Amino acid sequence: MKEQQFSIGIDIGGTNTTIGLVRLDGKLVAKQNLNTSQYFDAHKFVDDIVFSVHKIMMENKIKHILGVGIGAPCGNMLEGTIEDAANLKFRGKTPLKQLMETELGIPVVVSNDANAAAYGEMIYGGAKGMKNVVMFTLGTGVGSGIIIDGKLLHGSNGFAGELGHAILIPYGRKCNCGNYGCLEMYASIRGIITTCIELFELWPDDEITQIPREILSPKTIAEAALRGSTIAIETYRKTGEWLGIALANAVTFSDPEAIFLTGGILNAGELLMKPTKESFEKNKLSFYKNNIPILRSQLNENDAAILGAAALVW
Amino acid sequence: MKEQQFSIGIDIGGTNTTIGLVRLDGKLVAKQNLNTSQYFDAHKFVDDIVFSVHKIMMENKIKHILGVGIGAPCGNMLEGTIEDAANLKFRGKTPLKQLMETELGIPVVVSNDANAAAYGEMIYGGAKGMKNVVMFTLGTGVGSGIIIDGKLLHGSNGFAGELGHAILIPYGRKCNCGNYGCLEMYASIRGIITTCIELFELWPDDEITQIPREILSPKTIAEAALRGSTIAIETYRKTGEWLGIALANAVTFSDPEAIFLTGGILNAGELLMKPTKESFEKNKLSFYKNNIPILRSQLNENDAAILGAAALVW
Repeated sequence: MKEQQFSIGIDIGGTNTTIGLVRLDGKLVAKQNLNTSQYFDAHKFVDDIVFSVHKIMMENKIKHILGVGIGAPCGNMLEGTIEDAANLKFRGKTPLKQLMETELGIPVVVSNDANAAAYGEMIYGGAKGMKNVVMFTLGTGVGSGIIIDGKLLHGSNGFAGELGHAILIPYGRKCNCGNYGCLEMYASIRGIITTCIELFELWPDDEITQIPREILSPKTIAEAALRGSTIAIETYRKTGEWLGIALANAVTFSDPEAIFLTGGILNAGELLMKPTKESFEKNKLSFYKNNIPILRSQLNENDAAILGAAALVW
Repeated sequence: MKEQQFSIGIDIGGTNTTIGLVRLDGKLVAKQNLNTSQYFDAHKFVDDIVFSVHKIMMENKIKHILGVGIGAPCGNMLEGTIEDAANLKFRGKTPLKQLMETELGIPVVVSNDANAAAYGEMIYGGAKGMKNVVMFTLGTGVGSGIIIDGKLLHGSNGFAGELGHAILIPYGRKCNCGNYGCLEMYASIRGIITTCIELFELWPDDEITQIPREILSPKTIAEAALRGSTIAIETYRKTGEWLGIALANAVTFSDPEAIFLTGGILNAGELLMKPTKESFEKNKLSFYKNNIPILRSQLNENDAAILGAAALVW
């Protein structure tokens, strides 16, 4: 009967929030979306999530769920809050767990969205059976989730695994978080677009300089690369070089069995993965060389965090 | 009777190796030194360590010890080996545990020297009672030891916590390990001397340019700073700025309760600590701000690793 038990997994991203109904065996039964970027007020956001939870249960004729797991930017599992997430428009500390438990009357678990993705990968994805894993989520921002001895690493304040804000380039690009040179400024959607535009100066006649800036995206840049645009190819080469250094640095910390990557910018495929792997091998300490694979998440792009968040409830 | 039990703790550094006789309650009864840098052959080195162990036992009339704990550069607890340590003159994989157990007939535990220092700090020093700690050892090289949930972090190959070889400045100074820009090239004895010499060009009339290069050291540079040398002050300011970034990056990984520092370059006191703390506060993510103290080891400079190595045996 266990596989007939359900929980809700919610993945809050800078652009989209996805609410998923998940069966214990890992089947994602149904999903609904909210546009995160339209919310400037945390209470309105919570109200709409609660509405979606009721709606998805009704539509699927589910009367009882065990709980709600949430993966959110800067989500704090120890406190059940979201706090000053760089990519959300509501600031300060939002007591997400408390607000939602009051509305729903069932247990709510809050975690970092990338932590949830890492946990989902370990329970249901390519990291099944592994005990030491680092996962990077490469989307609007860069998140990370760290598994040590089969457990999510939370740290003393609940904020472990914020590698998107590890400083990759001292005195580098200004980040939303207020610091300079964070990985997030180089290996996210925004990072790729910034890198591309910075290269306009070097190759002013490249075809990509003719694309209107508002439609520049990892996708349009990848398409230009396939047509032979030097700037587009160089954009992905540099992004991979930087990302590879960040992955090598993560290895100096926890020496994982594998590194997992997920998120929209991976749709560029080998354009990004080849320079990333080359840089990773070059920048790792010699005794780690060729020993730690870089793998893509085996769960659908947005499902890892939902499944992981749901699994946190079990 | 427990405090009458003894073990041997050995701290292998790039310059010195110290063999210590340690009582269970943490008393370091006696010490002996070897000059590590004179050894080009691992077997000769092991022979001399074994000789020292017998000697220290005889001199202190100890007939039985429980075991030997070793903290060594790139020491691997899972395999009991030292492997390609950048600061040792013998290369390849040395099966230290196996060689010494054969000679001594008692259990031998090998760990990274900085891991041993971190463990010693937690059992006998300023980190007593803490469960999440990162320790940096700032000497000939830069090492680190990471404690998660009260346990040393080893990782999947036994090489976790090599933050001295995390890349701080991409494409920066060439490191002994073969990579470029490792923290070790900026926050070690050698790093400080390099920084100082690089600054000669900016202030060619500074008094420190008159000091013969072979006697330039963290100590002589600190002394020049106290006399007002601009280059010497700037050397420590830059070193602190770089170190602060590295400490902030460690926080994004494991969100520890405190960061501990040990090693010779800390003798410069506030000259180094002030810019380190300023840079750390500036470069941390906002939600960590003013929350995680940077503390100096409360054990004598070289004792933390010896005590920690000995404690690994218990």
